[in-house]
Amino acid sequence: MPVFLATTDPAFEEGFVTLMNAKREDSPDVDATVAAIINDVRNRGDAAVIELTARFDRLDLTQDSLRFTPEEIAKAVAQVSAEDRAALELAAERIRAYHVRQMPDDAQWCDPEGATLGWRWSPVSAAGLYVPGGLASYPSSVLMNAIPAKVAGVARLAIVVPTPDGLVNPLVLAAAEIAGVDEIYRIGGAQAIAALAYGTETIAPVDKITGPGNAFVAAAKRRVFGKVGIDMIAGPSEILVIADSDNDPDWIALDLLSQAEHDESAQSLLITDDAGFGQAVAAAVDVRLETLERAAIAGASWRDFGAVITVRDMDEAADLSNRIAPEHLELCVADPEALAEKTIHAGAIFLGPWTPEAIGDYVGGPNHVLPTARSARFSSGLSVMDFLKRTTLARMTPDALRAIGPAAERLAQSESLEAHGLSVRARLDKLNR
Amino acid sequence: MPVFLATTDPAFEEGFVTLMNAKREDSPDVDATVAAIINDVRNRGDAAVIELTARFDRLDLTQDSLRFTPEEIAKAVAQVSAEDRAALELAAERIRAYHVRQMPDDAQWCDPEGATLGWRWSPVSAAGLYVPGGLASYPSSVLMNAIPAKVAGVARLAIVVPTPDGLVNPLVLAAAEIAGVDEIYRIGGAQAIAALAYGTETIAPVDKITGPGNAFVAAAKRRVFGKVGIDMIAGPSEILVIADSDNDPDWIALDLLSQAEHDESAQSLLITDDAGFGQAVAAAVDVRLETLERAAIAGASWRDFGAVITVRDMDEAADLSNRIAPEHLELCVADPEALAEKTIHAGAIFLGPWTPEAIGDYVGGPNHVLPTARSARFSSGLSVMDFLKRTTLARMTPDALRAIGPAAERLAQSESLEAHGLSVRARLDKLNR
Repeated sequence: MPVFLATTDPAFEEGFVTLMNAKREDSPDVDATVAAIINDVRNRGDAAVIELTARFDRLDLTQDSLRFTPEEIAKAVAQVSAEDRAALELAAERIRAYHVRQMPDDAQWCDPEGATLGWRWSPVSAAGLYVPGGLASYPSSVLMNAIPAKVAGVARLAIVVPTPDGLVNPLVLAAAEIAGVDEIYRIGGAQAIAALAYGTETIAPVDKITGPGNAFVAAAKRRVFGKVGIDMIAGPSEILVIADSDNDPDWIALDLLSQAEHDESAQSLLITDDAGFGQAVAAAVDVRLETLERAAIAGASWRDFGAVITVRDMDEAADLSNRIAPEHLELCVADPEALAEKTIHAGAIFLGPWTPEAIGDYVGGPNHVLPTARSARFSSGLSVMDFLKRTTLARMTPDALRAIGPAAERLAQSESLEAHGLSVRARLDKLNR
Repeated sequence: MPVFLATTDPAFEEGFVTLMNAKREDSPDVDATVAAIINDVRNRGDAAVIELTARFDRLDLTQDSLRFTPEEIAKAVAQVSAEDRAALELAAERIRAYHVRQMPDDAQWCDPEGATLGWRWSPVSAAGLYVPGGLASYPSSVLMNAIPAKVAGVARLAIVVPTPDGLVNPLVLAAAEIAGVDEIYRIGGAQAIAALAYGTETIAPVDKITGPGNAFVAAAKRRVFGKVGIDMIAGPSEILVIADSDNDPDWIALDLLSQAEHDESAQSLLITDDAGFGQAVAAAVDVRLETLERAAIAGASWRDFGAVITVRDMDEAADLSNRIAPEHLELCVADPEALAEKTIHAGAIFLGPWTPEAIGDYVGGPNHVLPTARSARFSSGLSVMDFLKRTTLARMTPDALRAIGPAAERLAQSESLEAHGLSVRARLDKLNR
């Protein structure tokens, strides 16, 4: 049974805080293990990666077989059905179209003092993408990570994907090919992150690493952060649906379950202004759970972390949504645009009853890599910006330096940084000579 | 003596790699201490902060005196000279004008399938800024951190600044006032970071923490990352000057020294296509070091980490610059714009002989918080973006769902996420009925 709360209940605040603070993830402390693995790969390169892959993935590799050959990729991709390929291509095309619009502009202008100022965006030279193996090996995640990198102009994009016992998901390779990935290595875990960050004889180092992974991968990404850039460390997935009683309870139930089925630690929340509708959705969830393939996972998530919250009105819903700062926010209400104006902390918003969150997972266009665990308060989903960096530009003329140089000199003196001031003064003296 | 290298020397590559790999910073491992401090503040709030401040800053505070009162701020600010105030205001105005231009646009469009897509930027609700006490208490850093936050629209901006033995830098308070900071607390260290991240009885928690600090502050920021957003963890400062022989060696020497005087771990590099000019600059550095106030620090930095590299031509200079990925890059060459096109990895570029890097530290307009330690390969300086987050928006119509829904359903099936597929199918069935 999920939690049922109502803002009219005097105990609401307590119940809501308990819900927000529920610890949904028990990350094992693997930091020492991961540190040792990273050191090993730094010291011994390919040899360490090969040994660790034999141990963890039960797969014997050589330097020559670390990387998928074009023939191996072509053979795997040939197994993909025409329908699956068409779906991947439609998704890729829409993701590309959305992310192309994110490309930021360079800028340059001349200010009243005569200084030329501006900035310039440029892509990272090389990026690495971690793709989990096994059950959570999602071709859609390959598209969502690789396409923004390629749109940003990353020249070299390498994928690492573990293939335990040699098992490969052909759809992952097809997605990589469609996205224009340049290199694919059959390695995973902390050893793959270390290889991407520090390089080995076979694998050139990258500048940025993105993509989801297990506790070992997350710990390794944290450790190599600084040596390379990383994306966020994602937690379990979440959805908040705000729905009025004009919705079909079964649709809303399915939307809640489509988060819950990801993971027992996922969280699905419903806020409604109609307690009866909330009950109807909960009943619909129970019905769907009777037949759902992943009922064990979805049921556990719904039971342990699900909630139905009844509010007085949609303004109250917006306030609660902002406290939750959900990764996914679905607004199934009469005027979703008006409500979206008020829900300011959210990774992605899905407006209206015809936009189930699953559309956003695959083919909507926006990225499905989104901030979890309330981090939408301060961070954004993956975008082309993650694969770009900005260089600021400034050029002074003698006149500009004459106008603003003395203030710089003054501030340098106030901070006791004499050489700073002298570097300006030497030039001003030349101008005044 | 700094290192002298020349690309024509067969041993150049070895020397260059040694220079790049020089370990400039010995961060003490304070992680366990910091973890204990953070836990203490989380558990005991103000009481812990007050105790720790008494211990580390020799300052007895109460809940009522944790925060500077408006009267205390006004009294301190009144001590600032008119000249210093005018310099701060000029700097603030220029920094504001530059950062206003960084504000990104929201977007919304309708795609050929009828889906409305877009994104929206919004500021974080509350930000905290760490300002070091003592020697490294720079009012310019207050402006560089606080103004982008306020331009982004952060409603609540709190500063923490330790005041060891009660000593306050009036210029820091003046800069905070000019920048529009809302709250100033006289606390520092890991306890201040913990208070900002988790809140206490007196200090409300923030969503994002920026600003430089010592090893304790850096370790605390790493630890609270995830609970709140943080900016980069900055390393020692660096400059690369690329200069031809048409420059005054003394100007270039001062530019190199204006990095070196920051810190014994700072690094100042010169690349030139004229070995004789390189020698002349090194000689000018030695002359300036005879009288420089901070000669001990600047001299140690120049001796231990400085370098003069002679290249065959400016294309070679650009290649080396890209391998260095400097925080600050000064281009004192005949055509700096052309060279800037080729130097793609740099935090900030200063073009031409009239743009000493010190201008950028204070009054240029661009931010002086920049990526160090080669991280300009994948990250950018502080900007309004650090105080904004993006929410993606998607709204499907029935027609749009009819067009792209089946592909989403197909991909959901291929990923064995049945509820995802069903949430789309239920709606498609209704449309087909």
